[in-house]
Order: sequence, then structure tokens, then C-alpha cells
Amino acid sequence: MTKRIGLFGFGVVGQGYYQIAKKQKEKWIPDTIVVKDQKKRRSSDIRFSYDSQDVFDKNPDYILELISNMEEAYEYASEALKRGITVISANKKMLSAHLPELINLQKVFGGKLLYEASVAAGIPVITNLETHFEEDNIISIEGILNGSSNYILSRIFNNGLSFGEALRLAQQKGFAESDPSFDINGSDVASKLNILILHAFGKFVGEKQIATFGIQNLGEDEIALAKSLGLKIKLIAKAEKDYRGISAYIIPTLVEESNPFFGVENEYNAVKINSEHLQDQFYQGKGAGSLPTGAAVYGDLIKARNGFGYNYSKVNFDKPLDEKLLNLGVRVLIKSKSEEIIETNIFSPEFIKCIDGFYFSVGKIKPKNLSKLNELKEVSLLALPDFLTSSDVLKSLEGIKKSEELLFK
Amino acid sequence: MTKRIGLFGFGVVGQGYYQIAKKQKEKWIPDTIVVKDQKKRRSSDIRFSYDSQDVFDKNPDYILELISNMEEAYEYASEALKRGITVISANKKMLSAHLPELINLQKVFGGKLLYEASVAAGIPVITNLETHFEEDNIISIEGILNGSSNYILSRIFNNGLSFGEALRLAQQKGFAESDPSFDINGSDVASKLNILILHAFGKFVGEKQIATFGIQNLGEDEIALAKSLGLKIKLIAKAEKDYRGISAYIIPTLVEESNPFFGVENEYNAVKINSEHLQDQFYQGKGAGSLPTGAAVYGDLIKARNGFGYNYSKVNFDKPLDEKLLNLGVRVLIKSKSEEIIETNIFSPEFIKCIDGFYFSVGKIKPKNLSKLNELKEVSLLALPDFLTSSDVLKSLEGIKKSEELLFK
Repeated sequence: MTKRIGLFGFGVVGQGYYQIAKKQKEKWIPDTIVVKDQKKRRSSDIRFSYDSQDVFDKNPDYILELISNMEEAYEYASEALKRGITVISANKKMLSAHLPELINLQKVFGGKLLYEASVAAGIPVITNLETHFEEDNIISIEGILNGSSNYILSRIFNNGLSFGEALRLAQQKGFAESDPSFDINGSDVASKLNILILHAFGKFVGEKQIATFGIQNLGEDEIALAKSLGLKIKLIAKAEKDYRGISAYIIPTLVEESNPFFGVENEYNAVKINSEHLQDQFYQGKGAGSLPTGAAVYGDLIKARNGFGYNYSKVNFDKPLDEKLLNLGVRVLIKSKSEEIIETNIFSPEFIKCIDGFYFSVGKIKPKNLSKLNELKEVSLLALPDFLTSSDVLKSLEGIKKSEELLFK
Repeated sequence: MTKRIGLFGFGVVGQGYYQIAKKQKEKWIPDTIVVKDQKKRRSSDIRFSYDSQDVFDKNPDYILELISNMEEAYEYASEALKRGITVISANKKMLSAHLPELINLQKVFGGKLLYEASVAAGIPVITNLETHFEEDNIISIEGILNGSSNYILSRIFNNGLSFGEALRLAQQKGFAESDPSFDINGSDVASKLNILILHAFGKFVGEKQIATFGIQNLGEDEIALAKSLGLKIKLIAKAEKDYRGISAYIIPTLVEESNPFFGVENEYNAVKINSEHLQDQFYQGKGAGSLPTGAAVYGDLIKARNGFGYNYSKVNFDKPLDEKLLNLGVRVLIKSKSEEIIETNIFSPEFIKCIDGFYFSVGKIKPKNLSKLNELKEVSLLALPDFLTSSDVLKSLEGIKKSEELLFK
């Protein structure tokens, strides 16, 4: 039976979906495609519409919401759900902002909302949390969730580019936007982690509560430090639960070779789940790109056709969905031009050392301060693995600085 | 609504399931547990039955088939499916032998059969092939699918044990059976690969057709060679498809650090899927153990309760399910006491060299010969990565032998 499909948006993801749908035996080609910009040159084989009402007028069975504007996306998705229509969305910003209302609309009107493509593109992490892990008790979930940041870090560590060169290359390759700040400052990751927390722990924390620090201020010193220790830097998002509550933070992190995130390169994403019974699982796959993301959207459509919907069975609907985050200290290396920044933000510092006009310290930072620090230009942070002692860090830093001095003599 | 559950078998997996079920809010405790051995000491809190008919007499909604005997498992599973009862099985040997009949019984009588725990224990690979990859075109599927072999290889490479010492340790830890031959000769892996091939490519090839070579004859020379090249040996199962057909083989393989299988250690399993749209995905998780395997069984029960069943949508029921394997050559290092074995089995050898009474050669072996060679005592094989040249191998071998000579002078 042919189903009527309405598509909002024909960017990277929408085109990926379209390309896949054309090849399949079921040929789930949208009968309406609504786009915004009437002046943009587009394929002449496809008829486009510029009025969102055209989608609803055709009484679609499914709506694919693949636009980037967050407010419009919410308007179309909620309108569709109120009509009991199943919606597939890839808009993490919109979902992260409105999941409680969207869950409610599903419950009241019976339409389903699937959004596998919104987190880690091709990796079926939401589906697995909702099915395989449905009755398991998740202890932590961790991930590399932004392809652009990871591409930049790969170019720095594998090809010796500077941060600026790597960023320009990422933009040339189309991995980063012309304004890449949401990618590199962790904001995009915060939306995704917020969605994962809901499916892993049943709580809506809101991305503003997630302690977030990006890679935008990574300097030559931190990169040289990581290299001299045989480590890499990855932008890691982590949420964990204990009997007191949930902690969640996003921070550039030093990872060692035996850590499965060490080998995740370029536009790949990865997710590590630790649970009571299934224990450790690790998933890696393409976290960006037209075909992998379009395939995740197509996959959602097939799952919906097969009767699948998210059960949200970890959500306790009798209790408020909102949760105040318990954020404990994270052990970091901090670098700043101002000693005061360090003294105000670092607890029990293991050392404070001034090298060449920069203050370095290792100590615990309260995750609630991370997001404030993230807006400063001259502060850089690296989360440290437990095995790395202060004296290892100090020795490496001094070694780097000494060899730099030699270079400039 | 409480469901009636009948359980066959109370070994490692059955006990894992029971322990998990007791803790859950739905408390899906089996009302009948049938075991075989009346003399075995068992928990006095649980009433056991010794007559399989007791399960069927109670009109169960679900049957969990978690025994090791393959014929009995098939008898119970097929009996249940004929009554339209949903069956969860973890018995890879039984499934690999009887999938075509079992698929047919599901179609005719409407009962469902789920068996996520049968391959890679806790990793939801079958579920993902059936849902997320349902409409994607899979090009290859590769895996580390036997926890005991992988544990042995980890002890050899990470702790410097000999093969014999590592095997004894695996037996002490309960990872390998007292007769571990099915684990180490690749036979257990062949059952699992056979099941994966059905879900990835829609064809039933039968495990006897899968070219299989185990780790049982791995010698000091091959281990030293891998170490001297900075590589590890992993028992890799691989199936791939091109326009001519499907190839499938299991063979100890040299892997480099950038290969995601390199870091898969101990009782972990891993699966790598390459497909047209979702492209590369890699899953890693516990491949053995009471709780992870029991949780996969519990997860199947929850999925079945939610209405999920395998669609087998890659199977084309109008064409015969059986497929004759197209097995092309694999490039290997072969070691044998007999030069004739090498000459008969290796095509276009890049060299043949006798060192200390052993003949070594690098060349292509027809996978169809692998299973015959697998029964010989004095032959060892290693699949080689493309980048490794003959002269690299030869130089390393000569280096190893030279340093051995020095040791014995």
C-alpha cells in the first residue's frame, strides 16, 4: 500500500533521503516537498512547494521534518502530531528544546515521533536505548557526537595542522558551517546529549543545565602536551547516574590508546553505553553526511511502518520530567592568561604554574562553571584520565616549553 | 497483564535470565523450568520439572529455549512454533542448522522466534540488521564472534602466555568448555556467521559451506611474527557480497592498530557492518557471560511483548533460500612441516621458505580448502592485511629465527 509522505526541507539530509527512497522497491517518494527559498537553484525534475499548508492539505501518512529552522520545525511537527500523523525529525535543536511537549502530543493524539537521525546520524543509538536497553539500568552514556569537531581534531592529530588550518579545511569539505561556532563550542553536542539523557535515564534536564566546554580555545600547548604523552584529544559528552542523581558534561578530553574513542576519526561519531546487565557496549558509525543521515531517516520510516514507536518506558509520567543536574567535579588541566580565573574555578589545585605568561593548573572544576568559562576567549580546558598524574603533566609541559625555547634560540 | 513463561534449561544463560527477571518490575518469572539432570544440586528456592511436557501443559505465552542439546532444542522450538507460541532461543548450533524450517513454521503458524543472544550475546546485531538496516544494501559483515578464542588471544598478546597456558586459563575462568575444540577451531563462529548471513543477505548458506580455520594450531613463530610487526592476531569471521555472489570465511587474521578489531579484548565480541547508505558501523560488547547473555534474552522478550518480530525482508521467498558460496582467494601466511601441503593449497605463492624444518609461504588460499586444512595438526594460517608485503613478512620471520638461534647458542 502506497503511503503519502510530506517532506519539509531539501538540504543535505532531505536530498540524502530522496536519493535513497528513489532506489528502493517501495519507492516512498514524498508527494509534497516544501522548501523555503524560492530563489535557490534546484533540480528541475522535482516539483517544489513553498507553502507548508500544501503538505497538510494532502493528508499525509508520514511527515519528514528535515529543516534547520528550529521554530518552524516545532510548528510543523506539533501541527502534524496534533493530527495524529507520524513525524520523522532530524532536528536536534528543536527536539532538545521541546521533547516534553512532543512526548505529550504523542500520548494525547496517538501520532508517533521518531528521530534516530538527530543524534549520531547513522548510529541507531536511540532505537537501541528504546528496545535492547529498555529494561536495563543504564549507568552511563558517553559519546563523540559532533562530526565537525572530530574532523578538526583528527586533522590536528593525524596531519599536524593547526586549529585554524583544520577548521578551514573542515569548512572547505562542507563538514562545518560557515559559522561553525555551534559545532566547535559544544552547543550542538549539548542538544544531542540532552536527547540521549531522556532515553537513557527517563529525565529531561534541558541543554542549558549541561556543563559544556568546546574545542574553540584549544591551543598549541595542549595539543603538544597530548602528543608528547601519546594521547589524543576528543570532544567527549558524558552523562552518568548514581543514587544521588544525574551528572552531564561535555569537555575536550585526553584519551589513551586503549580507550575505544581513541580510534574514532574524522566525521565518525561513537557512543559507549554502560548498563547493569548488558554491561559495556560501544557503537561507531558515520555521524554526518547526506547518505548515512538520509538512511537513518528512511530507517525510521520503515520502523514506523512496522509499528515501531518509542515507548519512553524509562520516563515516569507520574513524576516531573525535569531533573536538576547533580554535577560533581571533573579533573582538568586548565590554561589561562589570568591566575584569578584559575583560582576562582579550580578546587584543590594539584599545582599552579606560570610558563611563558600562561598559568596552568590541574585540579577539579565544578561542571556548573564550565559553560560560563566556555564564553571566555583565553581559557582552555582538558579533562584528564585518572592515570595521568600532576607530575606527568608538569614534566611534559616543561619539556614542551623547553624545546620551544630551543627552537627560538 | 502477567504472561506465562516456560523455560528450558538452567545453565549460565538461564540463570542470568532468571536473576534479571527477578529484579524487574514486570517480574517475568518462568512458571515452569525444565532441566535434564535430576542429580545435579540446584537452588532449593526454585521448583524444577524434568518433563518437557510440563511446559506445554501450562499453555505458555512465551517459551525460552536455553539448553545446549541441539536436537532437543529443535524439538521444543518447533513444537512451540507449531502451537503459535513465541520462542526465544540462544542456541546458535540449533538455529544455524534449522533456520529455513524455523522461518517457515513462523510463517505458517504465526508464532515468532527471536534469538538475539545466539550471536555476539549482548550486542543487538540481529535486531539492528532487521530494523535499522532492513532496507539498506549490506556489502560486508565482519566480526569477532567467539569470546573464548578472543580471551586466549588477549592473554597471548597482552600477557605473554603461550597458547597452552592461555587455553588453560580460559578453562579455569569458565570461558572455554572442558572440550574447547568448538570454540577454538572456528566451528562455533561458523554457526554464528551462518545466522548473520541470513539476516544480512537473505540467504541460507549452511555452516558447512563456510570456509573455516581456527586458532588451535597457532604457533610461537606466528605469534612472534605478529608482535615483531606491531600487529595482533584476531579470529575474524567475514561475509561479503558482490554481483557474483557471497563469500564467507573464518580465519585468524593479522590486524593493525587502526583496525577497530585491534582493541577488542578478552570476552568481548565485535561486529563491523558495511552498507551502501549507512556505510561503516562497528559494534562492540560482551560476547559471553551470564548477565549480558541473559539480558539479551530478556530484551527479546520485551521486544516480542512490544510486537516486534523479524521480518526476514531480505529473504526472497520465491527463490530458493540456499546459496552456493562464491569463495575467492584469501591472502595468507601458511606454515607447514610438509612442502606438499603448501604446494597443493597455495596459489601464486609469493615465496616458499624453509626455516628450521618448517615451510613458510605467502600466497592465496582458496577458502574452500580451509576447512580441510583445519583438521590437520601441523598447519597454521594467518590472513594478511593488504599493506603487508612478502618481504616484510620474510624479513620478520628471519629476524625471529635469528634471535632464537642466538638464544640457544
